[in-house]
Amino acid sequence: MTLKQRLYRIIFESDTYTGRMFDVWLLVFIVLSIAVVMLESMPAVRELYHSKLISLEWFFTFIFTIEYFTRIYCAPNRKKYLFSFLGVVDFLAIIPTYIAFTFPDAQTFIVIRAIRLLRVYRILKLYHFVRAGNLLLLAIRRSLRKIFIFMMFILILVVMLGSIMYVVEDGKNGFYSIPLSIYWAVITLTTVGYGDIVPVTALGKFLATFIMLLGYSIIAIPTGIVSVEMSRTFRDRTESDKECHGCGEPNHT
Amino acid sequence: MTLKQRLYRIIFESDTYTGRMFDVWLLVFIVLSIAVVMLESMPAVRELYHSKLISLEWFFTFIFTIEYFTRIYCAPNRKKYLFSFLGVVDFLAIIPTYIAFTFPDAQTFIVIRAIRLLRVYRILKLYHFVRAGNLLLLAIRRSLRKIFIFMMFILILVVMLGSIMYVVEDGKNGFYSIPLSIYWAVITLTTVGYGDIVPVTALGKFLATFIMLLGYSIIAIPTGIVSVEMSRTFRDRTESDKECHGCGEPNHT
Amino acid sequence: MTLKQRLYRIIFESDTYTGRMFDVWLLVFIVLSIAVVMLESMPAVRELYHSKLISLEWFFTFIFTIEYFTRIYCAPNRKKYLFSFLGVVDFLAIIPTYIAFTFPDAQTFIVIRAIRLLRVYRILKLYHFVRAGNLLLLAIRRSLRKIFIFMMFILILVVMLGSIMYVVEDGKNGFYSIPLSIYWAVITLTTVGYGDIVPVTALGKFLATFIMLLGYSIIAIPTGIVSVEMSRTFRDRTESDKECHGCGEPNHT
Amino acid sequence: MTLKQRLYRIIFESDTYTGRMFDVWLLVFIVLSIAVVMLESMPAVRELYHSKLISLEWFFTFIFTIEYFTRIYCAPNRKKYLFSFLGVVDFLAIIPTYIAFTFPDAQTFIVIRAIRLLRVYRILKLYHFVRAGNLLLLAIRRSLRKIFIFMMFILILVVMLGSIMYVVEDGKNGFYSIPLSIYWAVITLTTVGYGDIVPVTALGKFLATFIMLLGYSIIAIPTGIVSVEMSRTFRDRTESDKECHGCGEPNHT
Repeated sequence: MTLKQRLYRIIFESDTYTGRMFDVWLLVFIVLSIAVVMLESMPAVRELYHSKLISLEWFFTFIFTIEYFTRIYCAPNRKKYLFSFLGVVDFLAIIPTYIAFTFPDAQTFIVIRAIRLLRVYRILKLYHFVRAGNLLLLAIRRSLRKIFIFMMFILILVVMLGSIMYVVEDGKNGFYSIPLSIYWAVITLTTVGYGDIVPVTALGKFLATFIMLLGYSIIAIPTGIVSVEMSRTFRDRTESDKECHGCGEPNHT
Repeated sequence: MTLKQRLYRIIFESDTYTGRMFDVWLLVFIVLSIAVVMLESMPAVRELYHSKLISLEWFFTFIFTIEYFTRIYCAPNRKKYLFSFLGVVDFLAIIPTYIAFTFPDAQTFIVIRAIRLLRVYRILKLYHFVRAGNLLLLAIRRSLRKIFIFMMFILILVVMLGSIMYVVEDGKNGFYSIPLSIYWAVITLTTVGYGDIVPVTALGKFLATFIMLLGYSIIAIPTGIVSVEMSRTFRDRTESDKECHGCGEPNHT
Repeated sequence: MTLKQRLYRIIFESDTYTGRMFDVWLLVFIVLSIAVVMLESMPAVRELYHSKLISLEWFFTFIFTIEYFTRIYCAPNRKKYLFSFLGVVDFLAIIPTYIAFTFPDAQTFIVIRAIRLLRVYRILKLYHFVRAGNLLLLAIRRSLRKIFIFMMFILILVVMLGSIMYVVEDGKNGFYSIPLSIYWAVITLTTVGYGDIVPVTALGKFLATFIMLLGYSIIAIPTGIVSVEMSRTFRDRTESDKECHGCGEPNHT
Repeated sequence: MTLKQRLYRIIFESDTYTGRMFDVWLLVFIVLSIAVVMLESMPAVRELYHSKLISLEWFFTFIFTIEYFTRIYCAPNRKKYLFSFLGVVDFLAIIPTYIAFTFPDAQTFIVIRAIRLLRVYRILKLYHFVRAGNLLLLAIRRSLRKIFIFMMFILILVVMLGSIMYVVEDGKNGFYSIPLSIYWAVITLTTVGYGDIVPVTALGKFLATFIMLLGYSIIAIPTGIVSVEMSRTFRDRTESDKECHGCGEPNHT
């Protein structure tokens, strides 16, 4: 077994002790590097520990850079890895620090650093979680078309209701424009209810009541769709998987 | 094939290349015209680009007017088209601009212009979305009677709870009248929770706690109704449609 | 057929034209009398039309009093009617006005007058709505025990979380006592979110985040319970009712 | 039957009249002692009745202490009882008062006293509620793995969305740091919507709209999971329990 193959087994797989240890450490580094990004964004912390956080940031970037190039080195198909979803995420996890070093407008790149969290997905992928996750994803994919139609319906509804409320509240009390009124309609229909925009006129309150009751009822639609598709997906899987025992997954009888 | 028939095929159907192109452009015009209505409602934008937005508004109205008369011209049954749901929507999509021109109290008619969004439905209707949408609609129609009873129950509940809170809060702290207290009860029961009206007395807070827990639980009722009806609808359809293969719809096994 | 029997058929049943007309008028009077109670509670309206509303109130009370005594007269079993749920509601619908006349502290009795709305139930009971409503009630009754356990769990959870937050926020920022903190915990867990009490400390916000995610997830439990019981109830009913056709109820195949 | 055995039957079981009376009184004492903890936390009440509440507190602690030692005395396996979940709860229910007496920093220990509420579970355990409760627990345990994956997904989502909003709102308007922005993202996604932090920029509001609609839709996922697992659990149980009649549980046909 060449070095390249051995590295591949450690970095990309998890069937050896070293491979599992690598996963654990990678997970630790990802979580810690996200913690550094968060701490850096807190004014009180940044003032006190700015230089230390920058050092830690460089340390994690250094680690992830080495890891990235090792992955490129030992990937069986380099091009495929580089342009795969996880390959791009690996790249985006290291590049912001270098850009922020060259152009010191660091702030804007903080977001991209948060993308590191997606790297956790690689580790999850290797373990049993993914099987149950795939069932979930399959059920969600099966209901996507219906959910999409539901969303189109919500969108049309929200534009209509927002326009009506704009006229009813006469462009006052926070309903200054149709887009703002639509923003309010979404807040109300989804039962979020910030309370930053609130109807003031009697008719506005009456319509708001109607929208709330509507939002309270139609949440049943996506829930119903997903329930039905999940029920079907889990049942199908149970039937086709009946020969596979003892893996702890409740889908096997 | 006469001109009338050819126009019919382009405007009303989507089985030709020209017909599909017509749909795409109509969709673009509808979305843009809604965007104009929205932009016009924003004070900052209106101040700067008022005349340009008016021109665009007339441009879209002109297009939709031509389209409307062409539809009348080539409809096989003109009276049926004119008084169909989509025919009325087509009419309401153009009339506000002409009225606003004659009587310059434009504001009030903005709402009606938002109805143009419903025209999107015509285009959706022609494509595959509608099949899944129809299944949804069928399931919803089947659960309507039960949802209606649930809504009656919620209405009675909300009037009673509102009246009690009006007395408990003694007509103060935003609970100035029974209708306002009902408005609060709806906000609380549907878990919207604006926070514009909030109980202040200890007893009021205790009752509010009870209403919140109630609202949190009874949302299970419409959800349960719709889930069950969807489950039945999708199963029925699957059984009766078994001969129809390969359309990508997951309802076919 | 005696007068008593004829009156019984009109007032208590709905299988004659006169009986149905009686129901319609009763419904109208109930809704109008509730409207009067609401209008009277609105300060602006009360100031202007106080005497007119009082007259209307007496008019409706007069009508309901006559109806009440006629019901007593023609009920086959008077004692049973008087102490039945609807008999008590009929009594509570007329008594507040008389009490408010004797002791002019009317305010407190407004609530009891809102109970008139429950009289609508009598009319609904006579028509087809009740069949679907009974199915709903049966499903809800079947899930009550499980919902009760869920509510016990929520109650214990909310008391514990409220106590923790009281200590975390150190009795400040609205968390002045454990009952108030429990009130906040219910607002947060049920996703109502008034925003009248809000955590201020970092630890308080962290815990709040946890409570929100918990509330967002465990709403699945009552929903799941009710969905399953409804599914079973509707299926059972469908099987036992197969002989009864053509009533428009989707439970019959 | 020795004294020890007789005491065991009264305290730990509920198949005798004395045992049931013991349960009722224990329940009363637990609820009252929680009420005392709550009252003590209310500034207005504490000022007036401080010494009386302290006396009551000592009274309940005294009762629970006697009960605790009697339980230890008559438990068949003392070590097992002492380290069982309910044994630890019994211990934690009495110890705070003694600690608060020795070190008068009582405040912090109030939380631990609230743990007494968990003792209610012992009493519930003895009665029929638990059977339905166990079915619920089984269904929840079966769906835990999928719920966990869902929660991981929500966590990653919320960190990403919070980071994006931190940049979009430019660290202003309450979005002062990434953790605070994540706190806002959880408030919005779970549809709690306090309104203490609210987007101010147009882009921020647009993204908030998107997050609300997302939160409104993905609540369908845990609901779907739990519904499906409950459906399966209740069905399995029904089939295996068919021989057990007449216990009032709807799971038996």
